[in-house]
Amino acid sequence: MSVLLTNIGELTTNVATGDDLLGTLHGAAVLIDGERIAWVGQASDAPAADEVVDAAGRAVLPGFVDSHSHIVFGGDRAAEFEARMAGQKYAAGGIRSTVAATRAASDDELRARLRGFLAEMRAQGTTTVEIKSGYGLDVETEERLVRLAAEVTPEVTYLGAHVVPAEYADRADEYVDLVTGPMLDACAPHAKWIDVFCETGAFTVPQSRRVLEAGMARGLVPRVHASQLGPGEGVQLAVELGAASIDHGTYLTDADVAALAASDTVLTLLPGVEFSTRQPYPDARRLIDAGVTVAIACDTNPGSSFTSSMPFCIAVAVRDMGMTPSEAVWAATAGGARALRRDDIGVIAAGMRADLAMLVAPSRVHLAYRPGVPLVTKVWKDGVCSRGAAGGGAA
Amino acid sequence: MSVLLTNIGELTTNVATGDDLLGTLHGAAVLIDGERIAWVGQASDAPAADEVVDAAGRAVLPGFVDSHSHIVFGGDRAAEFEARMAGQKYAAGGIRSTVAATRAASDDELRARLRGFLAEMRAQGTTTVEIKSGYGLDVETEERLVRLAAEVTPEVTYLGAHVVPAEYADRADEYVDLVTGPMLDACAPHAKWIDVFCETGAFTVPQSRRVLEAGMARGLVPRVHASQLGPGEGVQLAVELGAASIDHGTYLTDADVAALAASDTVLTLLPGVEFSTRQPYPDARRLIDAGVTVAIACDTNPGSSFTSSMPFCIAVAVRDMGMTPSEAVWAATAGGARALRRDDIGVIAAGMRADLAMLVAPSRVHLAYRPGVPLVTKVWKDGVCSRGAAGGGAA
Ligand SMILES: [Zn+2]
Ligand SMILES: [Zn+2]
Repeated sequence: MSVLLTNIGELTTNVATGDDLLGTLHGAAVLIDGERIAWVGQASDAPAADEVVDAAGRAVLPGFVDSHSHIVFGGDRAAEFEARMAGQKYAAGGIRSTVAATRAASDDELRARLRGFLAEMRAQGTTTVEIKSGYGLDVETEERLVRLAAEVTPEVTYLGAHVVPAEYADRADEYVDLVTGPMLDACAPHAKWIDVFCETGAFTVPQSRRVLEAGMARGLVPRVHASQLGPGEGVQLAVELGAASIDHGTYLTDADVAALAASDTVLTLLPGVEFSTRQPYPDARRLIDAGVTVAIACDTNPGSSFTSSMPFCIAVAVRDMGMTPSEAVWAATAGGARALRRDDIGVIAAGMRADLAMLVAPSRVHLAYRPGVPLVTKVWKDGVCSRGAAGGGAA
Repeated sequence: MSVLLTNIGELTTNVATGDDLLGTLHGAAVLIDGERIAWVGQASDAPAADEVVDAAGRAVLPGFVDSHSHIVFGGDRAAEFEARMAGQKYAAGGIRSTVAATRAASDDELRARLRGFLAEMRAQGTTTVEIKSGYGLDVETEERLVRLAAEVTPEVTYLGAHVVPAEYADRADEYVDLVTGPMLDACAPHAKWIDVFCETGAFTVPQSRRVLEAGMARGLVPRVHASQLGPGEGVQLAVELGAASIDHGTYLTDADVAALAASDTVLTLLPGVEFSTRQPYPDARRLIDAGVTVAIACDTNPGSSFTSSMPFCIAVAVRDMGMTPSEAVWAATAGGARALRRDDIGVIAAGMRADLAMLVAPSRVHLAYRPGVPLVTKVWKDGVCSRGAAGGGAA
């Protein structure tokens, strides 16, 4: 079964041509054959297909690659959010309330919630989602979380080292023994990635190294939460260990930036976090100008960033992180693919997976120009089309 | 035909009870009979109905009242937006390019665009939209714009005094003669409101007074764009003339705030403008604490704010203007109704128009807690149900 998308007003291929990193084509067409893209070119040269979809001048781009999420959890923290926005301290719970609710939830409850988030993300144009554990913090629950995540994505991250759970307060090293021992044994079979929150108040650099190296010894590839709340050595550790990505990166020294630029490690920006916590935004302009590869992801989680909207994150990255709309779109597609070390997504070219999003707009610029507006009208994931959140909408 | 919405987890009625300005009910039901709400109360007490809709614990609130938009226009200014975000001056066009494109567009082209925006707004929960002219700036085109707006909303605003058009450069008073003479004659029959952009670079206070008084003499009610770019006397003029709303209000003196608090004039905040232009945000906290009635609207327009998402504007007002989620929801519903001097919308109570929005979330707080995510699943406008931008989504 082949489908030809034709009359595409603006096609973002992410196959760089000359000065255009996004390889933009106008009046283009894309042939989808089964799960893959079979052909890309000018509409006037398009081959025949079983079905034709007329884009009527709309923009088409690669489906978003959301390389950082925490969407297997129980409970809700709306009251905590409300208190934070009012400038109040919120005594109850925090992440511990999510851990308690997650432990108490059944597999089916977690699964229903997870599938709800995935449907919501897909309708907003996201075709690949990385999912982390980290709200279990005991062997049984962490194993459940990575197992449930693996039902819906290959991009599963074992994040037993998210925080030190209450029952290990003041015994962080013992908790790391658990994370690198029995918990790793239970989780590694379901996971592709090993992650750690390397930050003051979470895990130290030596503890983070233990976690990452233990995961690597089991074939997991490292990625690191670091430098969100203050400067630290997490970035240097991540680069040294060949991490696929360091995520957050608000507080980076010049040496950190230079190390990232010289490495294959992607810096993943999470604009929803700064929006929802009022923390300072990282300076994406500085990173890009230094040659760092940048990705954008949502960090969907009930505490610090409950958006699941890649278009929203693009709009905030443009407004508040100094990215151009094109840079932000690249970071949310090809950048996410780099952060997941995937060479089959994030690009529209023959042989790639047929993961695409069509907008009710003539240009990708509208993702930043029209913040909050559902603009994704159709989504293809492995060649299968579904409806986006936008209706007919305005052009 | 009656419809009972039942099992509403959180119902925002906006009928103040005790300390709760939003009159929140839990486990509530609403009976819709034709175009009106017939009954509101606890689900356990609900009367019978022809049809029952189970809200399954979700939140229901009044449909959003977007009291400020400019959605009858031609063209697009994405390139100007892109240049502004990159910190560059953009030589070409600005508002003049929209005026040229609007004059050149046919009625059917403008109508199709307008209806597209309305559908997009409705899917995001907006059930009442005010629409301004102001991209014609000649008699014929301004008349077309108010006439087209009147096809779709009773809340039509004649804004011939949007800016001085190029052909009247250095002859602003002569342009005001036109606006208050032949253009008013042509537009008044289609309009309810008279508006003026009272700001340095647009119209002076004496010119603004002429425009508003001329409109009032024809039975139009004033509303004013003022104090967006710097302090001025626009607020005092608006209050003196009994304007329904002053819109923007970033630069207010203490005397302005006191005058507003003592008046029936609403201050309408437009968070999309500051988001999209990086101008400073007005301090809603100061206004609310002083007793000013505040509304939130999108100001949808191709130059300074191209969002049409009331949920997005709520999220920004909470993050950056110091409003609580509840205050922002009130301002986007009951506040908008006050800004339009409407007593039949913005509130869920027996006898009111059946304009409601249902969220795929347990609380209105999620509108700020989950920025950018399409959360509106069903919308009723005059009792007629349509699909919101959210699919099943996560709860
Ligand atoms: Zn995270
Ligand atoms: Zn306006």
